[in-house]
Amino acid sequence: MKLISGYYDGSRIIGQYVDGSIFNLTAAAELSGKTFPATMLEGIQLGSAFQADIQELMEEFEDENSSGLFLSADDPRFRWSAPIERPLKNVFCVGKNYRDHAIEMGSADDIPEDIMVFSKAPTSVIGHLESIPHHSDVTSQLDYEGELAVIIGKTGKAIAEGDVQDYIFGYTIINDVTARDLQQKHKQFLIGKSLDGTCPMGPCITLKQGITDHGKLSIETKVNGEIRQKGNTSDFIFSIEKTVSELSKGMTLEAGDIIATGTPAGVGKGMKPPVFLKEGDIVEITVEGIGTLRNEIK
Amino acid sequence: MKLISGYYDGSRIIGQYVDGSIFNLTAAAELSGKTFPATMLEGIQLGSAFQADIQELMEEFEDENSSGLFLSADDPRFRWSAPIERPLKNVFCVGKNYRDHAIEMGSADDIPEDIMVFSKAPTSVIGHLESIPHHSDVTSQLDYEGELAVIIGKTGKAIAEGDVQDYIFGYTIINDVTARDLQQKHKQFLIGKSLDGTCPMGPCITLKQGITDHGKLSIETKVNGEIRQKGNTSDFIFSIEKTVSELSKGMTLEAGDIIATGTPAGVGKGMKPPVFLKEGDIVEITVEGIGTLRNEIK
Repeated sequence: MKLISGYYDGSRIIGQYVDGSIFNLTAAAELSGKTFPATMLEGIQLGSAFQADIQELMEEFEDENSSGLFLSADDPRFRWSAPIERPLKNVFCVGKNYRDHAIEMGSADDIPEDIMVFSKAPTSVIGHLESIPHHSDVTSQLDYEGELAVIIGKTGKAIAEGDVQDYIFGYTIINDVTARDLQQKHKQFLIGKSLDGTCPMGPCITLKQGITDHGKLSIETKVNGEIRQKGNTSDFIFSIEKTVSELSKGMTLEAGDIIATGTPAGVGKGMKPPVFLKEGDIVEITVEGIGTLRNEIK
Repeated sequence: MKLISGYYDGSRIIGQYVDGSIFNLTAAAELSGKTFPATMLEGIQLGSAFQADIQELMEEFEDENSSGLFLSADDPRFRWSAPIERPLKNVFCVGKNYRDHAIEMGSADDIPEDIMVFSKAPTSVIGHLESIPHHSDVTSQLDYEGELAVIIGKTGKAIAEGDVQDYIFGYTIINDVTARDLQQKHKQFLIGKSLDGTCPMGPCITLKQGITDHGKLSIETKVNGEIRQKGNTSDFIFSIEKTVSELSKGMTLEAGDIIATGTPAGVGKGMKPPVFLKEGDIVEITVEGIGTLRNEIK
């Protein structure tokens, strides 16, 4: 199942997404007199009750195609937002988690032996089809990074690798847009990774039940239709199990936390000569089983 | 003026602190029939209305010493929390902002030319007198870092150095407790800086009006009564004006954001041989005009 967040006629909604059509769960809950979370984050924090509520709403309204509860994603009254529009804390990001990418960023010496984690401020999050600001006043090296992201569904600490699956709510796509000059200049990555609008997220969250093996997902990034990154999560240096387990060793992970898992080779900085994003460029990231996240540089 | 957050008889309160005595603003507002924010963060987000409300409450109740609105900080029914118990996002931290500390962590090559910023997860925040977990299962090199922290009072972006004062709400103290082995092993600092309970904050927020010059504050850290760090914010490599201005260049800073400004020389790792924190150690950090933040390792 795929869940989306967005705005319909200016009001925030949570929906179920199938083939370009959105079942408006928020409106269905209202019609049904059911209390329903206002945001996806609140829903995730409710635990299993959230998915049970969704299931009931789907069953209650499954035959009512005409009731106004179904809308097209192309409906001009609908606007996408990030599935989790305002995360609880910074987005965790794994650095250099694909060998080829580590090498293109420097050399084989850059392949990490231990997991490297930095963060992006919540103010950087935007949704599918929203514009990424060009930030030409502060950077001349804006670059894309297509990534699979894991959404934590249950608060936990010291999570064993074998138990990680229990703590996952679902998966989404993140474009870990990076100002390469700032990333390099400031050494710790936070500044170069946290410019406003540089964390596009979406289009949806695919619940974990919808992904058979998160360790075998193809991932592809296109810029203006040209394939730039082509990878598979089977090439991870640090698996999702390892990542969640390592991160949670002394730090409590919370329901709603977001972990971007790193990007494959093919970023603009790795091209010879490097090619950075310019106004009007369109970046599309496709992850198997989730969909395509599309954003234009403005 | 100094403001505190805590719990009285199990209920969350905001108070004004003077010489060991707390004026219970939350109880005063209730008595007065005034709406009052539930948390310091909500108060800060209200802007100038928050300080106006506090002023009115102080005037309304100034003569009522016996009304039960004043409590001793030693009252067993009172428990401190961090002034901002749950930050909106990760705490921003400036790395190596004192020359002598940069050198003790390596060599003169470690003195940064450009500001270095990393973050601590909100789950690491604890209050004055709360215990810092020893985390002996994940680190053998737990270390203290006494720091002045700035609390942002007004949301803004691209803030000019000359305007920074307008965007400050006040100041507090942070112990940027660090697992040195994890900091080094994982390269990006987030993991080594975000273990649960490794961001003691408090005891209070001194409003900016109470600090004449944030660029001339003495700072001192004691471990078990022995002075380890002795510095002054006049030694900053990057002033508060520069820090806020740099951070906000392409990233919106929000009311309630917390920026720890770096630590002076004298951390445990810099001692010869290095001495790390052990169970039972008591760390006390004193910053001029704010107070003393005290925590025990448990």
